[in-house]
Amino acid sequence: MATPKKVVLAFSGGLDTSFCVKHLQEKGYEVLSAIVNTGGFDEAELKTIEEKAYKLGVNHHVALDETQNFYDNCVKYLIFGNVLKNNTYPLSVSAERVFQAKAIVDYANSVQADAIAHGSTGAGNDQVRFDLVFQIMAPNTEIITPIRDMQLSRQAEIDYLKEKGVEQDWSKAQYSINKGLWGTSVGGAETLTSHLTLPEDAYPSPLKKETPESITIEFENGEPVGLNGEKFASSVDVIQQLEKIASEFAVGRDVHVGDTIIGIKGRVGFEAAAPLILVKAHHLLEKHTLSKWQQHHKQTLSDWYGMALHEGQFFEPLMRDIENFLTSTQATVTGTVEVKLLPYRFEVVGIKSEFDLMNSEFGDYGEMNNAWSGEDVKGFTKILANPMKIWMATQKKANPTVTEA
Amino acid sequence: MATPKKVVLAFSGGLDTSFCVKHLQEKGYEVLSAIVNTGGFDEAELKTIEEKAYKLGVNHHVALDETQNFYDNCVKYLIFGNVLKNNTYPLSVSAERVFQAKAIVDYANSVQADAIAHGSTGAGNDQVRFDLVFQIMAPNTEIITPIRDMQLSRQAEIDYLKEKGVEQDWSKAQYSINKGLWGTSVGGAETLTSHLTLPEDAYPSPLKKETPESITIEFENGEPVGLNGEKFASSVDVIQQLEKIASEFAVGRDVHVGDTIIGIKGRVGFEAAAPLILVKAHHLLEKHTLSKWQQHHKQTLSDWYGMALHEGQFFEPLMRDIENFLTSTQATVTGTVEVKLLPYRFEVVGIKSEFDLMNSEFGDYGEMNNAWSGEDVKGFTKILANPMKIWMATQKKANPTVTEA
Amino acid sequence: MATPKKVVLAFSGGLDTSFCVKHLQEKGYEVLSAIVNTGGFDEAELKTIEEKAYKLGVNHHVALDETQNFYDNCVKYLIFGNVLKNNTYPLSVSAERVFQAKAIVDYANSVQADAIAHGSTGAGNDQVRFDLVFQIMAPNTEIITPIRDMQLSRQAEIDYLKEKGVEQDWSKAQYSINKGLWGTSVGGAETLTSHLTLPEDAYPSPLKKETPESITIEFENGEPVGLNGEKFASSVDVIQQLEKIASEFAVGRDVHVGDTIIGIKGRVGFEAAAPLILVKAHHLLEKHTLSKWQQHHKQTLSDWYGMALHEGQFFEPLMRDIENFLTSTQATVTGTVEVKLLPYRFEVVGIKSEFDLMNSEFGDYGEMNNAWSGEDVKGFTKILANPMKIWMATQKKANPTVTEA
Amino acid sequence: MATPKKVVLAFSGGLDTSFCVKHLQEKGYEVLSAIVNTGGFDEAELKTIEEKAYKLGVNHHVALDETQNFYDNCVKYLIFGNVLKNNTYPLSVSAERVFQAKAIVDYANSVQADAIAHGSTGAGNDQVRFDLVFQIMAPNTEIITPIRDMQLSRQAEIDYLKEKGVEQDWSKAQYSINKGLWGTSVGGAETLTSHLTLPEDAYPSPLKKETPESITIEFENGEPVGLNGEKFASSVDVIQQLEKIASEFAVGRDVHVGDTIIGIKGRVGFEAAAPLILVKAHHLLEKHTLSKWQQHHKQTLSDWYGMALHEGQFFEPLMRDIENFLTSTQATVTGTVEVKLLPYRFEVVGIKSEFDLMNSEFGDYGEMNNAWSGEDVKGFTKILANPMKIWMATQKKANPTVTEA
Repeated sequence: MATPKKVVLAFSGGLDTSFCVKHLQEKGYEVLSAIVNTGGFDEAELKTIEEKAYKLGVNHHVALDETQNFYDNCVKYLIFGNVLKNNTYPLSVSAERVFQAKAIVDYANSVQADAIAHGSTGAGNDQVRFDLVFQIMAPNTEIITPIRDMQLSRQAEIDYLKEKGVEQDWSKAQYSINKGLWGTSVGGAETLTSHLTLPEDAYPSPLKKETPESITIEFENGEPVGLNGEKFASSVDVIQQLEKIASEFAVGRDVHVGDTIIGIKGRVGFEAAAPLILVKAHHLLEKHTLSKWQQHHKQTLSDWYGMALHEGQFFEPLMRDIENFLTSTQATVTGTVEVKLLPYRFEVVGIKSEFDLMNSEFGDYGEMNNAWSGEDVKGFTKILANPMKIWMATQKKANPTVTEA
Repeated sequence: MATPKKVVLAFSGGLDTSFCVKHLQEKGYEVLSAIVNTGGFDEAELKTIEEKAYKLGVNHHVALDETQNFYDNCVKYLIFGNVLKNNTYPLSVSAERVFQAKAIVDYANSVQADAIAHGSTGAGNDQVRFDLVFQIMAPNTEIITPIRDMQLSRQAEIDYLKEKGVEQDWSKAQYSINKGLWGTSVGGAETLTSHLTLPEDAYPSPLKKETPESITIEFENGEPVGLNGEKFASSVDVIQQLEKIASEFAVGRDVHVGDTIIGIKGRVGFEAAAPLILVKAHHLLEKHTLSKWQQHHKQTLSDWYGMALHEGQFFEPLMRDIENFLTSTQATVTGTVEVKLLPYRFEVVGIKSEFDLMNSEFGDYGEMNNAWSGEDVKGFTKILANPMKIWMATQKKANPTVTEA
Repeated sequence: MATPKKVVLAFSGGLDTSFCVKHLQEKGYEVLSAIVNTGGFDEAELKTIEEKAYKLGVNHHVALDETQNFYDNCVKYLIFGNVLKNNTYPLSVSAERVFQAKAIVDYANSVQADAIAHGSTGAGNDQVRFDLVFQIMAPNTEIITPIRDMQLSRQAEIDYLKEKGVEQDWSKAQYSINKGLWGTSVGGAETLTSHLTLPEDAYPSPLKKETPESITIEFENGEPVGLNGEKFASSVDVIQQLEKIASEFAVGRDVHVGDTIIGIKGRVGFEAAAPLILVKAHHLLEKHTLSKWQQHHKQTLSDWYGMALHEGQFFEPLMRDIENFLTSTQATVTGTVEVKLLPYRFEVVGIKSEFDLMNSEFGDYGEMNNAWSGEDVKGFTKILANPMKIWMATQKKANPTVTEA
Repeated sequence: MATPKKVVLAFSGGLDTSFCVKHLQEKGYEVLSAIVNTGGFDEAELKTIEEKAYKLGVNHHVALDETQNFYDNCVKYLIFGNVLKNNTYPLSVSAERVFQAKAIVDYANSVQADAIAHGSTGAGNDQVRFDLVFQIMAPNTEIITPIRDMQLSRQAEIDYLKEKGVEQDWSKAQYSINKGLWGTSVGGAETLTSHLTLPEDAYPSPLKKETPESITIEFENGEPVGLNGEKFASSVDVIQQLEKIASEFAVGRDVHVGDTIIGIKGRVGFEAAAPLILVKAHHLLEKHTLSKWQQHHKQTLSDWYGMALHEGQFFEPLMRDIENFLTSTQATVTGTVEVKLLPYRFEVVGIKSEFDLMNSEFGDYGEMNNAWSGEDVKGFTKILANPMKIWMATQKKANPTVTEA
């Protein structure tokens, strides 16, 4: 008798991946389920998912913790680049998918699996993110996607599971919610329209505090390392601790409208208190510590980085080059940022940094100083005017009737 | 007897330009004072300034209204480009200076002035903006800058004026406030530090309303043309009307940190309710009506545009090319945006547009549809993976011990 | 009896499209063959192709002349942008495919065809270019691609045609050659390797002249309008006349290595005397008539334009915005460029233009002049140094042991 | 008696810096002359300059060798970035000035000089380059520029030197020639016009070989490390050896037209056989070993890098970030490039590299393969078409009379 083929299934405990377990077993596979935690699950939730897996009858289940790795190889750069897709969205879910996929492949390789399966439909971004990573990292491993291929209705899946002896309450929540280290996405109802916004109670974290509160965040070379004067072992802890504090003010909520990988527009709500605060605080620190040109070019490269990451192109080699670029820019992004939390909003108050380029030693803006004189500025302006002066004179000579603008 | 030389003086009615009037007359000039309104003055204020001018003894005074021209040749493009310098500042004051300088030159030319004078010090951006425009547009006209050249203290200027018979209360306000069509800047005290923010009462427009209010803004080819269903003759009216409504919610306040033209960092507060709301509403409409690549490239060019404009380089020929680019992108930016005003903040709710690319006819995100199948996406992903797959395989072959990321 | 379905077939007279004629007829289609001329065919060649079509038994044949349209909506912008893919390739073939596809769709619509067919294989770029244009412009028209779908060997196609009574010499040339207005591509043998280059006799135009010759090209707003003092009715004529003159010097040959749409690297030789000379002459004229910043930003946008065009994304809306940007930059690109032709190479000699910004009236480089003084430059440099001076001082203070670079 | 002040003078042995020696001594300075070699001088030339210095009576003379440092901190990145200013000029002279200035400052600091002097006029770029570096690295050291300040005629300088007992043949060559590691600039006569090019005999290296010759260049991580199979201790040796071989073919000549730091256009001829060949060979290797997106973004950043370096802004912090970016991109730029040398021109023939991404294992362009199918490409194209299809449909619906392009 032949040894059954081994499949690693990216398992969430939901209807689709539960269906996959039974379906793959019926096809004769030995099913190893794996859940990858990129910061969205606590121990209890992971335990529940494990129990579901074994109850469905998987041959083996594993929870892979990718949180620190996700921070080290991704979130860090999103902070360095102040990445907010379309100037709004911290890529809360899209960035995590890549790291989930990578962990799945590594696990599949370690157990010498013959195939990898995921439960994505054929309608969204996630199928592309998973497939891309699987194909690039394991080009010879079969990819199985029962949900995409079979296109069953929810009811058909429920019926099939029932037939296989699995009964459970599969009723769907009004909003689809995905939680991770770098934010929680909230989709459904209003986000399917262009003109409505999410109601207050669609967001999982309600307002709990009304009294304004000031906090400080410490950055070292662009990375958040401390909160309110306390240093943390990992930036992951800073993010999680900040999320705890700030989410009570219900800040960091918004709705993102953007381009999906498959070329249509999509809309999704999110709450991401820590990500939003960290990006804005980090950006303020950069305004004080980076040159004008560093900021200008960082913006363009970071925008591209966010776009490519969102589209699952983590393995594009340019990504590594941009990461090296961004790391280089962070040499002086060290200091403390004060942030004021208020109900539904926050303010970045100011910074303290030994690399602060706004420093009265070199002259205060608007005040005369001994580093240069009005005469110097006259000379500066005269030379600065040269190309435009020559341009204007050439225009007037070539076309005497021309008038400016 | 020789005809006295004619000088046109950019006049604000403050201490510095009042000093200039007397100083220039003493030097033998016929002084023509001019105030350029780019939306910051009402009739009464202009009247007061005129009275001050004549009281000082100018030979002639004129108020030049540049508001519509400023909108048509500048603010319009700031909206098209969603321009917020360093992702914060709508260029409230810097953009206006160029148009004030242009109006001064045109006036000086029309009266065949021998010289142009302005009261800027040698310490800030404005001297560069004024000088640049004057030198480019009127390279043969003398530029006179008594304040920059003489570097007198305020007291010395006051004494000089007193000696010339001009007595007035010249006491300085705690904050220096500049109002214009595109926002009001607030500088002083805290903005001279890196770590403090402006107190609530430093902002000229106090909170007056607490009950949330929904408004709609209508855009046509990127320009704001209507408010709450009412069309306006000019976008200038939309801006001014919106400012009136929104400033009662005390929204659009922030502190900008940025690079001055003379190479040091500077910090300035501002309140700009209408500009901030228009930029954010316009941006939302673009997210629905522009392609991914249009948005990506617009961002880079607009960022450069804002930077150059801030630095007074309005006459750089690339500026015209970017304006044409931006105008081209606005062909489909037509529709209505709903905005919700709340105390100290606002939310962009949603849009309606016949050019909305998020349209269920072509498939909803996350829902299967008949325009393409899961099989199509599989093929798409396979080809999309090609370059990264080849890269990875080449890496592994060249260096068999390499591991991913 | 049902009316047979009508198919418009993009027909070249080669083996693949000849096979398509017979195959489509066998499937019951009424076959209308169409050849689109984008400048690569003369009357005699078009006549031969027509004869081949009717001999194969097509119901109707048409030759569509797209040359002027191709210039007006594409080549013009390639000149404006000095577009050479990977700094080498004038997009000789790739750009034309889009316009051939567009003409095919327009024709198919005009005859109310039910389907469009093309003979591309599944291995190259052209299938994507054709499919993209067809799907975008005629989303409801069926696309038929027998060669891609059936994957027959050349011999199987030849046998099938023989069986259908079509006998002809189908022997394959050593190099696959594609001629068009904007150059001729030469692929095969060496271009399939990374280390060999094409031998001299692979290029269709042999060296005929050895004595150097000087020519002048006249540009108006960036478009080539005259040659050696003679004005032409259309820039198409300038290109064709220049190609005639310059190809006798065997100039404009090179091998392009680049990224295909399907993600693998490809290599192709080309000869493109007129395109290369026009791009280099135009570029020289721009160096004299555009500002530094215009040139810098043109480069990035043009590079993107060439990349997207190569990939068949002509209908991406950003393309129109870049075209408007480029047109705007050409306002002053008017003048005459002298070019010296020599065997296998050419030199751009110099330019004459009323918009030449290098003009001794404003000061010669390296000579003192009255527009500014050494003192002005001292002041300029002092202010220019400010941000870097402050940066360096801050670095030294924060880390006293730091040394420069 | 007071100790005389010490000045370090950047000394070339020409008229201007000879004048400076005498002038500074007359002003009471102890004069230490220094010549910085960035690859343009051989031992004999340095000896001659030293003799001239002592003959003029300097207190001390030193020759500082910066060649390797110049390569390590600058030329390397110009190769990585394929930097040719305005797509023509390898920055032969401009890049070296910065490193000469840096060496002068380091020397001045080591001898605790009170001042630094250079002989630049007030008309060119070099004054800005020298002043910038001096001001940034030694903000408290006086900068003395007698030639710029006194604006003497050549004759007046000659007369002054004669009066001080210095007689020499100061007759000026027809062309001003500056030699360095990265090329030789040739200015004068024709380069002062827009329409003439340099005659053959203006270039210092005449054609010596007519028989074509093939050479190979070996690159490791983007750096040239070998020639014709032989490895060299330093890339400096590769450059110098290649220059020797290739200059006999009179290749690498051209005329650059560009924007000077002071805002006017300038034109300069150059011969730079090794730089041009290395840049083109390196670029070819990159086309085979980098991704499309790496190449696209490298181009923009490198263009900016070359522009800033040309303008003396070596200490702009963004320069370091771009250097780190470029270094990151070179991880796979390893291999051998074949180049064919012919009279006045060269051809890049092909490459061999273990990182070559054009590799038949993954499918040859234009050939079917087992990595993907025509069906995959159909799916790819369908999804790729989505945004443009939706755009077009939206356009047609909003404006039914619209026609494409």
